[in-house]
Amino acid sequence: TAVPPVTVDDNNDRTSVKGHTRNLSSGTTPCTEWITLNVGGKDFTTTRSTLTQQDPDSMLARMFSGEKCVSWQSSVDETGAYLIDRSPHYFEPIINYLRHGRIVLDKGMSAEGVLEEAKFYGFRSMIDHLEEYIEKNQKADDNTPIT
Amino acid sequence: TAVPPVTVDDNNDRTSVKGHTRNLSSGTTPCTEWITLNVGGKDFTTTRSTLTQQDPDSMLARMFSGEKCVSWQSSVDETGAYLIDRSPHYFEPIINYLRHGRIVLDKGMSAEGVLEEAKFYGFRSMIDHLEEYIEKNQKADDNTPIT
Amino acid sequence: TAVPPVTVDDNNDRTSVKGHTRNLSSGTTPCTEWITLNVGGKDFTTTRSTLTQQDPDSMLARMFSGEKCVSWQSSVDETGAYLIDRSPHYFEPIINYLRHGRIVLDKGMSAEGVLEEAKFYGFRSMIDHLEEYIEKNQKADDNTPIT
Amino acid sequence: TAVPPVTVDDNNDRTSVKGHTRNLSSGTTPCTEWITLNVGGKDFTTTRSTLTQQDPDSMLARMFSGEKCVSWQSSVDETGAYLIDRSPHYFEPIINYLRHGRIVLDKGMSAEGVLEEAKFYGFRSMIDHLEEYIEKNQKADDNTPIT
Amino acid sequence: TAVPPVTVDDNNDRTSVKGHTRNLSSGTTPCTEWITLNVGGKDFTTTRSTLTQQDPDSMLARMFSGEKCVSWQSSVDETGAYLIDRSPHYFEPIINYLRHGRIVLDKGMSAEGVLEEAKFYGFRSMIDHLEEYIEKNQKADDNTPIT
Repeated sequence: TAVPPVTVDDNNDRTSVKGHTRNLSSGTTPCTEWITLNVGGKDFTTTRSTLTQQDPDSMLARMFSGEKCVSWQSSVDETGAYLIDRSPHYFEPIINYLRHGRIVLDKGMSAEGVLEEAKFYGFRSMIDHLEEYIEKNQKADDNTPIT
Repeated sequence: TAVPPVTVDDNNDRTSVKGHTRNLSSGTTPCTEWITLNVGGKDFTTTRSTLTQQDPDSMLARMFSGEKCVSWQSSVDETGAYLIDRSPHYFEPIINYLRHGRIVLDKGMSAEGVLEEAKFYGFRSMIDHLEEYIEKNQKADDNTPIT
Repeated sequence: TAVPPVTVDDNNDRTSVKGHTRNLSSGTTPCTEWITLNVGGKDFTTTRSTLTQQDPDSMLARMFSGEKCVSWQSSVDETGAYLIDRSPHYFEPIINYLRHGRIVLDKGMSAEGVLEEAKFYGFRSMIDHLEEYIEKNQKADDNTPIT
Repeated sequence: TAVPPVTVDDNNDRTSVKGHTRNLSSGTTPCTEWITLNVGGKDFTTTRSTLTQQDPDSMLARMFSGEKCVSWQSSVDETGAYLIDRSPHYFEPIINYLRHGRIVLDKGMSAEGVLEEAKFYGFRSMIDHLEEYIEKNQKADDNTPIT
Repeated sequence: TAVPPVTVDDNNDRTSVKGHTRNLSSGTTPCTEWITLNVGGKDFTTTRSTLTQQDPDSMLARMFSGEKCVSWQSSVDETGAYLIDRSPHYFEPIINYLRHGRIVLDKGMSAEGVLEEAKFYGFRSMIDHLEEYIEKNQKADDNTPIT
């Protein structure tokens, strides 16, 4: 379910092209408690407290901790979801970590794939745990990245 | 399929921002027999009896057993689905457990991931079974959580 | 794609709450050849002949074999899909069995999960095959249900 | 994304029930280059050339090679997608085969499941390769169909 | 979430059939920073810079690097997403590669399946790495393509 659009604060430094804001400078929208992220084309519905509580220095905490939400590259889609140009698949362990503080991966999910996302969002403690885990499991299994 | 909106009982202690109710106190809506939960962005359609029968003390049973349904953090989305800020992936064995009373995990699904959800929703018997199962299977396999 | 709504025969013994029929007694709708089932929140599009040909005593055959389709707990959603409060994941081998008569499971899919659904829908021959299969494979693998 | 409806050539020998054509005789719609198939409830967007180039005798080639597209059991859904009552899961290797001519299966995907679909659609060369492959791999693994 | 339609530059050499452009010659639309690709029926939302930065000679870079975006076979769907007739499943490691420059595959995902896509889109360096990887892993595992 796409959570419905938040009212967009249409300030002057943005121009719209049919539902997209195009300006790459910061855009802001009034923050609601429930937030939908459109990560690479898939919706994740969560709350501000989930996004901001674990690591105040992370990108997501900085985006959603103020009185106004700062949209990534100024863009929300027409349903009001914040657009993030990253993998939805490897974002799942990330958002679960934000919900309960543990890193849990299904068998077969590449830890390297999750690590790339943790680096992008800037979750310091998650990066450390994942790097340690990957090093320990550095046997020639098909999960290790090809490049 | 998103199940259509229930009529929302718009009482005074809530304010709406385009389809979201923002107040964190309890909100209530008239309960229908069919209920859609929007768990972390994914819809699960089920019935009140499924949600309430297995464990009357669980969060879901308490939300949906009264004459009025109590929304989690007062929020339903525009389609009438109850918003829950948790993993949809690990919710699947939870809802199936509510349907038939057995805990069934596909190979590769992390039991720890399911355990975190069982704890959140407060399914006592499920927690016990999962913890026992995890302990028995505590061989160094890649399903054990990293932190 | 949600297949569009069938016309609902709105007889007196049901009351509607925004798209839901609430009465738990039998409801009926004129049967179309193409039918969409909303199983636990996910759409499955199929035909009446698929649903009715394999096992005339099964729940689905009984629902869709008459001149009028009988909705489960009187409920169709707003798109006209028949609501069924069961796992969509384990329904996939069920509907494929109805299509071609063979039980095929991907590696890793829990046969116990499928068995629970076969029991619910009442596919006698499928139950027998699955129980036999599970018994033969009763080695301590992580697919065996926890409870 | 559901690709938008094609204009349906509403000839006399069909009657419509809210978006469905009911008559089981052949229905035809003007063919567009981009075609969406609704396979068992899931959309696949592709082109006519993909559907028709690999095997002119297959069901899909015959449906989409003429000046008018022939709908399967006369039915397109309201978005204009052609309804096919088969497994979407096992259709993925089929459509990829049509795109690049190779049969590629992820680990764990049942070759028997794909074979059933190849038989249904009538891809002769694919059937031969799959049968040969299955025979070679006929060790007691859990991918072999239960019946 | 389907990202909303871009305005389509409706020049003369195309004719429209309900939301589809039919002409196979090049079509162009004004480029927005956020772009949605409809790959085989599934939406991927990303940015122009992601699509164009890694390999300027690739098909995607050429489509989206000019002032006007060039649509593949002149076609965007009604939501403004660019239609691409390829596998969405094996496109995921491709788009992630464009985002962070590494090739990461989950266990079980067929490298051959990804290779076919890398060849189609023309990512030279990715092709080399994947071919090298496949050769090294050429043990008789069930990931090797059947044909």
